[in-house]
Amino acid sequence: MTIITLTTDFGHQDPYVGVMKGVILGLCPEARIVDLVHDLPPHRPEAAAFALWTAAPYFPAGTIHAAVVDPGVGSSRAILALKAGGQVFLAPDNGLLSYVLEFSGPQELRRLENPMLWRPTVSSTFHGRDIFAPAAAHLALGTPFDNLGPTMPDPVRLPALAAIIRPDGLYGRVIHVDRFGNLITNLPVDAAAAWPAPFLIEAGPARLDHLAESYSQAEE
Amino acid sequence: MTIITLTTDFGHQDPYVGVMKGVILGLCPEARIVDLVHDLPPHRPEAAAFALWTAAPYFPAGTIHAAVVDPGVGSSRAILALKAGGQVFLAPDNGLLSYVLEFSGPQELRRLENPMLWRPTVSSTFHGRDIFAPAAAHLALGTPFDNLGPTMPDPVRLPALAAIIRPDGLYGRVIHVDRFGNLITNLPVDAAAAWPAPFLIEAGPARLDHLAESYSQAEE
Amino acid sequence: MTIITLTTDFGHQDPYVGVMKGVILGLCPEARIVDLVHDLPPHRPEAAAFALWTAAPYFPAGTIHAAVVDPGVGSSRAILALKAGGQVFLAPDNGLLSYVLEFSGPQELRRLENPMLWRPTVSSTFHGRDIFAPAAAHLALGTPFDNLGPTMPDPVRLPALAAIIRPDGLYGRVIHVDRFGNLITNLPVDAAAAWPAPFLIEAGPARLDHLAESYSQAEE
Repeated sequence: MTIITLTTDFGHQDPYVGVMKGVILGLCPEARIVDLVHDLPPHRPEAAAFALWTAAPYFPAGTIHAAVVDPGVGSSRAILALKAGGQVFLAPDNGLLSYVLEFSGPQELRRLENPMLWRPTVSSTFHGRDIFAPAAAHLALGTPFDNLGPTMPDPVRLPALAAIIRPDGLYGRVIHVDRFGNLITNLPVDAAAAWPAPFLIEAGPARLDHLAESYSQAEE
Repeated sequence: MTIITLTTDFGHQDPYVGVMKGVILGLCPEARIVDLVHDLPPHRPEAAAFALWTAAPYFPAGTIHAAVVDPGVGSSRAILALKAGGQVFLAPDNGLLSYVLEFSGPQELRRLENPMLWRPTVSSTFHGRDIFAPAAAHLALGTPFDNLGPTMPDPVRLPALAAIIRPDGLYGRVIHVDRFGNLITNLPVDAAAAWPAPFLIEAGPARLDHLAESYSQAEE
Repeated sequence: MTIITLTTDFGHQDPYVGVMKGVILGLCPEARIVDLVHDLPPHRPEAAAFALWTAAPYFPAGTIHAAVVDPGVGSSRAILALKAGGQVFLAPDNGLLSYVLEFSGPQELRRLENPMLWRPTVSSTFHGRDIFAPAAAHLALGTPFDNLGPTMPDPVRLPALAAIIRPDGLYGRVIHVDRFGNLITNLPVDAAAAWPAPFLIEAGPARLDHLAESYSQAEE
């Protein structure tokens, strides 16, 4: 039994995600499919990149992650297959895998180019159905990673995620605003917790005085 | 292992879809349940009809599709069971199966009338839970299609889907607007691709001049 | 095979629900996970309480329900484990289990306090991932209910759900407004159906004259 996760910007008003599941189960009835997130902002790989990177470590080794936020579908952009941390990630080459590439250990990166692993006909608008889903299913069935395609030396990367730590302050970015209004930054929790209190938080024009006590609950 | 797909207008703020799954798994623990789409516009069978018709071919033979967009629940409307293309479709008799009926090959159509396949008590407001879910589970467990009820000669049909192709133009309808703002029409891709460029697209008061080159990527 | 249902206010724009599934499947690959509802209004246990109570009876005996609407996460609020009706319910001690506690039969209630059943590190912001998910998985794997923690005599309860039936009228509350705009009240259907027609419905400033005939279809 292999887990296949799906990460898309397809939302829930169309049967696109369901169709990907039909293709997967038609090839590999034993796959366990998990929806990671589908209401990502459309066509923004950086949002998907963050979701995938933070979620993947909570899945067991052997999990296959198929992530389709793909504004370049139908263009000549490559599709990546990344082996890292005992898991496999399939995603368009548009920065979606940036954080996994940046932060996970030994890696193997290939272009998903072997048409034997696709559906017989491939549309120019729905590679989730025609390439990602069948490739994930074939991997779950045991197709070796090396069969996916040639190695890929130079994937697209988003700007580096690391915050800047200087004597006068920590400089980071808000990466994500979640459902509850939490702002998730790229500031490392250790550096933030070690900063002498009281400190001042600035985000654009906003300023927030902050006591160390109230920070002690923040995390990750 | 049998796949049961669920197509509803129930949305995601109530446990209605979850309850259908509880009923199915209580009867048939081995069923693989796939959400096709649940954020369909409420009470509009024609939207569900399009989603179901376009998604079904990507599921393997033997799949059972339960579709519940059912403004007439509690009235005397029939419930249909359609065998087509090696799959079974359960839906209210309100046009939801129109496209499958119009475009799939040899078919067998019955009324879902056998109360042995329902929950012991049937509410007047939630046939998804009390009729569709248990009937789908019983089919997955091996109940023969013929046991569902008597044959049904004359189901409700939506207006025909086919576009009109004339020397002066292609006349079609926008059937669906998807999450990305794509307008999906009933124009056949072959007829559209064969039309001499440049051509003019009219939709209500909107007019769009269009070059053949930019069309070459469109599909389906 | 054990069913684990998930009820949260996490929505669908973050991978939080998916992460809980990763943790569960990492521990118990055979678990069948069912989404009960995730678009509950954030931080309102009473909405989750109603959803869980109405949905649970449609799941088979042995089902484990993990419900995480948890505005007090990171505080000293307890986490409850309730055995009732042949099922197990895990939820924060904030009233979420009120209706199940009030209306189900013989019960056993414990505090979920055994850290052997948690993830090795527990954050202060995501107990769904670090406590609820692994505890549900361990229960599905066969951990005895008594191992969860000590008995709990006095859980938090929402105001009583029962309507008041008096000679001059039925006094109840609107508990939930569903996706279709249906108002679900706590009025017992028997009492409402037995009330002499015509009757008058008052809800805040709204007044509705109502004939008995049109009521005959209402239910639950």
